Amino acid sequence: MSESDRAGGWSHIDARGEARMVDVGSKSVTARTARAAARVRMREETRRQIVAGENPKGAVLTVARVAAIQAAKRTGELIPLCHPLPLEKVAVELSWDAAPPAGEAILLIETEVAVTAKTGVEMEALTAAAIAALTVYDMCKAVDRGMRVEAVELIEKTGGRSGRWKRG
Amino acid sequence: MSESDRAGGWSHIDARGEARMVDVGSKSVTARTARAAARVRMREETRRQIVAGENPKGAVLTVARVAAIQAAKRTGELIPLCHPLPLEKVAVELSWDAAPPAGEAILLIETEVAVTAKTGVEMEALTAAAIAALTVYDMCKAVDRGMRVEAVELIEKTGGRSGRWKRG
Amino acid sequence: MSESDRAGGWSHIDARGEARMVDVGSKSVTARTARAAARVRMREETRRQIVAGENPKGAVLTVARVAAIQAAKRTGELIPLCHPLPLEKVAVELSWDAAPPAGEAILLIETEVAVTAKTGVEMEALTAAAIAALTVYDMCKAVDRGMRVEAVELIEKTGGRSGRWKRG
Amino acid sequence: MSESDRAGGWSHIDARGEARMVDVGSKSVTARTARAAARVRMREETRRQIVAGENPKGAVLTVARVAAIQAAKRTGELIPLCHPLPLEKVAVELSWDAAPPAGEAILLIETEVAVTAKTGVEMEALTAAAIAALTVYDMCKAVDRGMRVEAVELIEKTGGRSGRWKRG
Amino acid sequence: MSESDRAGGWSHIDARGEARMVDVGSKSVTARTARAAARVRMREETRRQIVAGENPKGAVLTVARVAAIQAAKRTGELIPLCHPLPLEKVAVELSWDAAPPAGEAILLIETEVAVTAKTGVEMEALTAAAIAALTVYDMCKAVDRGMRVEAVELIEKTGGRSGRWKRG
Amino acid sequence: MSESDRAGGWSHIDARGEARMVDVGSKSVTARTARAAARVRMREETRRQIVAGENPKGAVLTVARVAAIQAAKRTGELIPLCHPLPLEKVAVELSWDAAPPAGEAILLIETEVAVTAKTGVEMEALTAAAIAALTVYDMCKAVDRGMRVEAVELIEKTGGRSGRWKRG
Repeated sequence: MSESDRAGGWSHIDARGEARMVDVGSKSVTARTARAAARVRMREETRRQIVAGENPKGAVLTVARVAAIQAAKRTGELIPLCHPLPLEKVAVELSWDAAPPAGEAILLIETEVAVTAKTGVEMEALTAAAIAALTVYDMCKAVDRGMRVEAVELIEKTGGRSGRWKRG
Repeated sequence: MSESDRAGGWSHIDARGEARMVDVGSKSVTARTARAAARVRMREETRRQIVAGENPKGAVLTVARVAAIQAAKRTGELIPLCHPLPLEKVAVELSWDAAPPAGEAILLIETEVAVTAKTGVEMEALTAAAIAALTVYDMCKAVDRGMRVEAVELIEKTGGRSGRWKRG
Repeated sequence: MSESDRAGGWSHIDARGEARMVDVGSKSVTARTARAAARVRMREETRRQIVAGENPKGAVLTVARVAAIQAAKRTGELIPLCHPLPLEKVAVELSWDAAPPAGEAILLIETEVAVTAKTGVEMEALTAAAIAALTVYDMCKAVDRGMRVEAVELIEKTGGRSGRWKRG
Repeated sequence: MSESDRAGGWSHIDARGEARMVDVGSKSVTARTARAAARVRMREETRRQIVAGENPKGAVLTVARVAAIQAAKRTGELIPLCHPLPLEKVAVELSWDAAPPAGEAILLIETEVAVTAKTGVEMEALTAAAIAALTVYDMCKAVDRGMRVEAVELIEKTGGRSGRWKRG
Repeated sequence: MSESDRAGGWSHIDARGEARMVDVGSKSVTARTARAAARVRMREETRRQIVAGENPKGAVLTVARVAAIQAAKRTGELIPLCHPLPLEKVAVELSWDAAPPAGEAILLIETEVAVTAKTGVEMEALTAAAIAALTVYDMCKAVDRGMRVEAVELIEKTGGRSGRWKRG
Repeated sequence: MSESDRAGGWSHIDARGEARMVDVGSKSVTARTARAAARVRMREETRRQIVAGENPKGAVLTVARVAAIQAAKRTGELIPLCHPLPLEKVAVELSWDAAPPAGEAILLIETEVAVTAKTGVEMEALTAAAIAALTVYDMCKAVDRGMRVEAVELIEKTGGRSGRWKRG
């Protein structure tokens, strides 16, 4: 702001707490990917209903995939300081734990997001995984309210200045 | 996911039904355009009110144009597997069928969308046309509930690997 | 506005074109439903791929259903003069024309929306039908760009002062 | 749909997989609440930076609270089969595990949502908790990419036909 | 949260800065209205172009009205701690200052919003007025970048416990 | 549209009022910035409560900053003819007028937005400033309903064909 605009003088407010969407203008446009995961722990009977297609709200896993893809595209609206990005790929892979604790089942949700941009897509992959997990919860909660989303986490990311990172 | 993450082993879920936003990362960034159309069939009296500016909700055709433009920008949110794109142009052209059936009128909505990107804007043009048509319906439904949206369709698209396509 | 705010006097702008969201405050809260339909005309081969689950983007009909439901909920954002409503039900029913023209197939999309509110849900049902149809187009356009959405129309509505209306 | 519309006859598509937003029209309008939680496991140094206000993106915990509240309001857009609801209260409470494992810190996020409506707000509370946790991840990921969101879960819900439920 | 969940003990984070969407659950459902205003100061030549319909982007005042109505409906998404409300009416009235300073023109935007709810619509009326003003700026900025939005303010509100308030 | 598409002949509707999102396809991709400002006039007591952290809704200034950043990202949805842009930076700076009129206080909100694109970010900076101001109003309106947003205006913009512009 020019001095003339500050005719009366202005006392600037302490920078603590100054939320900002950091400037990525000088970063390089590179291919970037991120993979994230979430797990949903449920009762074995709940899994049986999902697999048998008996859920009264519909095809649980397909709806969860669609929810994940749509959430990835809206990450910039949900996570306040995220940059909006023109995503080039969003994929969701689902699998069941082959040896869960007795009476339980664990659904593993893995997401992969890709972009060619100045900043990465970790948050898009994580948001997709989390929303897929919550969608499963929503569709099954009438029969299994105690379901739990566990371990929403980044698995791997590539591209950008910091290059590849993989969960140890 | 690394093997160590799959300690107990995971049984992958059949790929059938795996909704995905396909990877366009390796496609070329080119200028792309799409033109779509929708027709709204109404009573002649309904057209007369629109043209005379007598609609109680306001300027039907201008509101429909604005709705079309805004819908084009949100196509990626509405069509689940669409890629979000930084649209460079959205235009809407309206005309009346000069020789409709007796007692009827037909409004032709044509949209044109342009982008420079890795994938095309057919869905943006179609979504704009459809929402414009529905907006006309909304504004006139109090006087003509039987209005019908006919023939929402792609007219032409250019750019990308498949090049130009034109409805035969 | 108080007179003092109008010190210099203000010349009101002609009411023509004054888009407005009409006041429904004095209307009764009643149960209201609406049913709408859209048809998608495609090549017989396209139908075969949908039914066989061979579409490369995923489960076409389930994704279209999800898109319809989500679009219904966002109708107030898409149709400028629509009132936002707390929808109580959104359902989508799909069927194939049993005797289409040779070499073609016609998918019929029917939606039903219900609410208890001061205004109806015709636009929600229509928007859901249109977006479901466009989602089918999006998922199949790589193999059948000439697909056409036909006859997006209201089938029936109940509730409110005007009561039941059914397409003749 | 009337018989006349079905002139050629229509073959209805199997109900399996028919995603639907279930009809809550006949449910009672009652006061409903839900409380959910999420935990974020991080390095002790990451906590120190948060508490000291040294995060380069801003006030981590306040931004996470705002993100949670805004996400709660958009749950109906994110979780495909959720009903949109006019939320009456969204609160977020944060605390630190007083005795975490050595070198680590655990942030506990608890959300509470209330509404007077025909269906509950479990998904709103869960979505708020998950997005708050992801916002913390986003703001701290530059210094601690290995952070993990753990245990997104419903804690308690009240109201509705099924009454009170509390995690065992 | 139950004691067992707090096994290690949790140190609650100071309530300062705890953004919350305050609980309106116990408030009465009453008819509420709000009126707000914004003024846009521009060059006389800019007004002339608007009135003559010469703006290259289109019908400035109608587009601004549509933008205002749509913004009112999205206030709960834009103003973080606002409650989402099922608006019943949104109207926009425009007028020109009949005696502006030489060489200038002032557009007055007045909005009115109504709802039957537990909390008021002041923010909806204000948001509508501000977005209408910014839309005018957007459409005219190519010819008059120095335009200024002045005095976005509440004019009057009715309903609720505090009753009627009117700007002095 | 080709003549063959216009079999029956169509009478084109007068171009007046044809809202359009103008074509920026042939413009150059350059670094662009914009800075905007808004002022909020309030009672001195209101400022005291903000600074003391006594506002019952939470940390006013941090919430306003977050609201500004999120609004900037959604400008393309709010301002009908704006192009959607992948913002690279959004920052908000706040200060108090050091010598306000007796009994009053003035909060100055300044925003800065940057992008590398074919069109500028003036509207994003203005929208961020306006929404930050309205958020302050929302959080303080219970104690100071007469607050007024003054002078939402562009301060400076750089980049693009027209280059640098600065308010005189």
